[in-house]
Amino acid sequence: MVVCCGRWQREEPEVQLSRTEPRPFSAPQQPTGRASKMTQISIPSPADFHVHLRQGQMATLVTPHVRKGGFSLAYIMPNLKPPVTTTAQALAYRAELEAIDPTVDYLMTLYLSPDLTPEEIVKAKEAGIVGVKSYPRGVTTNSDGGIESYEMYYPVFEAMQRVNMVLNLHGEVPSDAKTNTHILNAEPKFLTHLHSLHKAFPRLRIVLEHATTRAAVEAVKTCGPTVACTITAHHLELTVDDWAGQSFNFCKPVAKFPDDREALREVIREGHPRFFLGSDSAPHPVHSKSTSTPIQGCAAGIYTSPILLPLVAHFLESFDALDKLEGFVSTFGRRFYHRELTVENTHHVVMQKIGAHVVEEKYGADENSVVPFWAGKEISWQIVPN
Amino acid sequence: MVVCCGRWQREEPEVQLSRTEPRPFSAPQQPTGRASKMTQISIPSPADFHVHLRQGQMATLVTPHVRKGGFSLAYIMPNLKPPVTTTAQALAYRAELEAIDPTVDYLMTLYLSPDLTPEEIVKAKEAGIVGVKSYPRGVTTNSDGGIESYEMYYPVFEAMQRVNMVLNLHGEVPSDAKTNTHILNAEPKFLTHLHSLHKAFPRLRIVLEHATTRAAVEAVKTCGPTVACTITAHHLELTVDDWAGQSFNFCKPVAKFPDDREALREVIREGHPRFFLGSDSAPHPVHSKSTSTPIQGCAAGIYTSPILLPLVAHFLESFDALDKLEGFVSTFGRRFYHRELTVENTHHVVMQKIGAHVVEEKYGADENSVVPFWAGKEISWQIVPN
Repeated sequence: MVVCCGRWQREEPEVQLSRTEPRPFSAPQQPTGRASKMTQISIPSPADFHVHLRQGQMATLVTPHVRKGGFSLAYIMPNLKPPVTTTAQALAYRAELEAIDPTVDYLMTLYLSPDLTPEEIVKAKEAGIVGVKSYPRGVTTNSDGGIESYEMYYPVFEAMQRVNMVLNLHGEVPSDAKTNTHILNAEPKFLTHLHSLHKAFPRLRIVLEHATTRAAVEAVKTCGPTVACTITAHHLELTVDDWAGQSFNFCKPVAKFPDDREALREVIREGHPRFFLGSDSAPHPVHSKSTSTPIQGCAAGIYTSPILLPLVAHFLESFDALDKLEGFVSTFGRRFYHRELTVENTHHVVMQKIGAHVVEEKYGADENSVVPFWAGKEISWQIVPN
Repeated sequence: MVVCCGRWQREEPEVQLSRTEPRPFSAPQQPTGRASKMTQISIPSPADFHVHLRQGQMATLVTPHVRKGGFSLAYIMPNLKPPVTTTAQALAYRAELEAIDPTVDYLMTLYLSPDLTPEEIVKAKEAGIVGVKSYPRGVTTNSDGGIESYEMYYPVFEAMQRVNMVLNLHGEVPSDAKTNTHILNAEPKFLTHLHSLHKAFPRLRIVLEHATTRAAVEAVKTCGPTVACTITAHHLELTVDDWAGQSFNFCKPVAKFPDDREALREVIREGHPRFFLGSDSAPHPVHSKSTSTPIQGCAAGIYTSPILLPLVAHFLESFDALDKLEGFVSTFGRRFYHRELTVENTHHVVMQKIGAHVVEEKYGADENSVVPFWAGKEISWQIVPN
């Protein structure tokens, strides 16, 4: 249901009532009309397909923020210390998260490393693990054990394709001055790997995570229906100018140029069903974001979980794509991941446009507190309590 | 004099013994041979053609560092609060600096603004003011009063050309998402202005300050002998990867890509006489570099004055250009600025290669201290006390 200017309108149902096998997503969704005057929105069971919930005290603080931010499904990244490389670790981690907040559906992933075997993939699938995440070595938080080349993992990918698991790619190559490779072209230079993997494993579902460039958007579009792409909330707003000298806007992949940001906005406005939200919400203690020394820079990561659904609505409205919110934050990703909604498992989250709501300055206490993105700034949407 | 492996060698004299009018600089200096085994270097009166010495307490701290870093001439930037826009202000500022350290030759500049008249230019020239600095609006520290278009200043430039003053350009256009203009392409996009100004005022000496891109190097090379270019020490070392999340490496213009850095190194290795040192040494109190809030990012600026000559030697040696040190830090800039050396005014600074000398962690006390570039890292060259 959508309320425009206070008048109730009936929408065409987007929610699928049963799980299905992958199907072509190449035809963009048709625009459903301008939504700039919406004042209330109801979203069926929002799903965040890329979340960092950390461990220990930090996990205790941030895990409840998934639900606070409007989401009932969270696709959980495995870059812990030590990384989540086995089914047993992933199940234990899920149990930890469920102990903190049992109301969220946590989809678990394994960290791709040389220790991962085709046998472990079969075991993981049987245990309900959904995907495997690949980190290039050294490009982001806790990625020291990341991969250096993909061919050695082909037996693993073959097994993943066979049992229908998802490969999640952090799509950046490591910087290398000799080849003029740096953090601004690391993603475009990765795209040949995406195409190679898709060609070698055409039935393997692959997600290019947190795309930041026009090149990445175009590359994913040219791929078949088994390749999708997540987009964060913050990359819809930031460009390189915003994180230069501003550590709270610094993340990996770094935000790129205005034209790249426009490509992300365009593909959402277009309603392309293979592009959906993965917030990459990544909490760090405030001191690791606010302070640097000449030896130690600040941590990479932007935290959006507790305000995620209102924030995404705020941004989509700013570039005239609010009518694509439901697809972007719920149905597109759920369809790709075979987590489509049934009548029984759908929980509608209602947001109202309320004008000037100021985002919290921090969550948690003292030096362990976390500063959210958009802290102290205004969002015009707010979740209506149940 | 240069000592190679302990053996004294006689150099061809590079020092000019009288002032001359501008002359063509387009022919690159011929290589004088490899210098990778030098252990002692003597440089005649090093000159830094772009320095920020600030005001008040900060000026008291940093002004003596010009000499400490091996330099006896400093070309002083006018972006104070309020900016130095009149001859009277510039002379008063020079007197302040001379009161702190009278042993340095301070060349003064005015801040280009709508208040600057051709009459003031004539007055400034007669008073010994050397140049006029142009800041695009809002691109760096204290540039809120910077210019937005150049044509309104043509009468001022005409007067500057007539009386033989130098125009110093901060060569960046302001960011603008609509035209995909951002801090990484702000300098290349500025170069059309450089060419227009040079074409309109072919006898006006122009310096493109702190070049950071291959495009800028190539643009200056194509200009006539009245256009030169300064290069900082830190841009010989840093790339975009180094300042991402590391506020102590953040400055404007931001360091660019490895290929751009290579272009800066190449033009120095080539010994091109229109490319010389302007450190853009820019001190900020430590807290404004080390801490950020979501509202306030860190200050832009890198401080190199107190270690400048050893640092430049260290970097030039790293890319096999140590034999070009004398031209880069003394004779090229002096020739362009008509500050060539006489026997009487030459003071040789001798450096020795001493192995592991660690750069100070900070200068000054407490919250007003300043952290230098390369803090805690090693430099292999050290100035020999007189």
